[in-house]
Amino acid sequence: MSDLDPTLREETYPLQAHLGFELTGWRDGWARVELPVAGHLGNRQGIVHGGVHATLLDTAMGYCGCYTGDRDRRAMALTLSLTVNYISQVNGLRLVAEASKTGGGRSTFFASGTLRDETGAVIATATGVFRFRPPE
Amino acid sequence: MSDLDPTLREETYPLQAHLGFELTGWRDGWARVELPVAGHLGNRQGIVHGGVHATLLDTAMGYCGCYTGDRDRRAMALTLSLTVNYISQVNGLRLVAEASKTGGGRSTFFASGTLRDETGAVIATATGVFRFRPPE
Amino acid sequence: MSDLDPTLREETYPLQAHLGFELTGWRDGWARVELPVAGHLGNRQGIVHGGVHATLLDTAMGYCGCYTGDRDRRAMALTLSLTVNYISQVNGLRLVAEASKTGGGRSTFFASGTLRDETGAVIATATGVFRFRPPE
Amino acid sequence: MSDLDPTLREETYPLQAHLGFELTGWRDGWARVELPVAGHLGNRQGIVHGGVHATLLDTAMGYCGCYTGDRDRRAMALTLSLTVNYISQVNGLRLVAEASKTGGGRSTFFASGTLRDETGAVIATATGVFRFRPPE
Repeated sequence: MSDLDPTLREETYPLQAHLGFELTGWRDGWARVELPVAGHLGNRQGIVHGGVHATLLDTAMGYCGCYTGDRDRRAMALTLSLTVNYISQVNGLRLVAEASKTGGGRSTFFASGTLRDETGAVIATATGVFRFRPPE
Repeated sequence: MSDLDPTLREETYPLQAHLGFELTGWRDGWARVELPVAGHLGNRQGIVHGGVHATLLDTAMGYCGCYTGDRDRRAMALTLSLTVNYISQVNGLRLVAEASKTGGGRSTFFASGTLRDETGAVIATATGVFRFRPPE
Repeated sequence: MSDLDPTLREETYPLQAHLGFELTGWRDGWARVELPVAGHLGNRQGIVHGGVHATLLDTAMGYCGCYTGDRDRRAMALTLSLTVNYISQVNGLRLVAEASKTGGGRSTFFASGTLRDETGAVIATATGVFRFRPPE
Repeated sequence: MSDLDPTLREETYPLQAHLGFELTGWRDGWARVELPVAGHLGNRQGIVHGGVHATLLDTAMGYCGCYTGDRDRRAMALTLSLTVNYISQVNGLRLVAEASKTGGGRSTFFASGTLRDETGAVIATATGVFRFRPPE
């Protein structure tokens, strides 16, 4: 369920459209990304591929540090390092990644994130270090 | 370019088909996975999404510890922890993830991997810890 | 300040004595470890060496998954993987690492931890995967 | 065994003296740090504490990116993120951490490292992201 300020909604980008995830919440230092579980996400064992967890957590963590509240002045970040811990398997119908900024300065920021299903069960946790891209 | 023993070729699984990557090399303690760079992999900035790097490295590392050489006795692994360092941006046409097993025992294994483009430029490195699934 | 149940107090072990840290809180799924900032912790730049952060966070995370409440039935864990993010430099007088178990089962557990100084400023965050040692 | 260029030898810093490790090799993009196994490194289980592995690998990785070959123009780095995978237990008498720079630019660098004992057995692997400190 999206509580994203509609004036901040961005165009869907290619991987987002291809996998089907959506930014559903975004505030200063916080972001949420959601993805319905679907057949095309399955791995060799028929369960959601761990790369999907990483993709959602990387996305939410990247967004959480790039909030400006001004769509004409967008911040962009590159991931320097990403660590994902895989806590439990996916049993739900919807993946929800929430991330918060934990620190940083003008050039880099740190974030942590948690991936849950729609029941709140923790599926994975992540931390990351990100670098802001210089404005163009 | 695949040098995978054809008798070990497995059915393409859903995320693999959806993103377009392929297992192109597999030996005891080593695996290689490749993916042509394509428009559907792009992120918010128009470059390959970091989740793609994580997906390829996780896949290659998982395979490298699961080699049995016997398609009737397949080993399966779950990722416990994955760390990806993003060294440089993608400029090439093809992503090549190679991974090697670095240790472990009967229940868990460790692996490290490197993602390069077709020119050999290092794009990302990764390490991971994996747990074998009990045979069914 | 210690709120450790005195019946659970263990003998100080060698590295603990050598560096000077102490377990000051321990409950099911949670632990706290503290270390006064001291000259012997300094690195090449005269600030607390990052290995100290890692040591305290690894220790607190290991303890948080090993609580049994029974000193005659101690659980022991080995670290499989540890990730530390270095958020800010140490300005305080005391390092306080708190850790919580985030998941796991009978053989492995996951934890996350935060290192703060005595003012509450966040200095580092960590996640880890641990394996229980079989009882002897 | 040290093959460190004697003109690059630095003063022993506090934690180094306290734990007993030594920089024994240093070239552009590479460094080696060594520590004799000793009683004061023991953890709650009587084996070398995982924080020691992290300390040595963090140190070697930090040095590998800071080589200048000129003791009057020293480079300094801060760790942004460190991941250590604990491959096997210490059975040897000496811990040897070797690290290589894997990438980076003017502000940050990436490194990977391996901790072995004197027989060459792999004990731990690590990766890290580091930021150069601005010259004073």
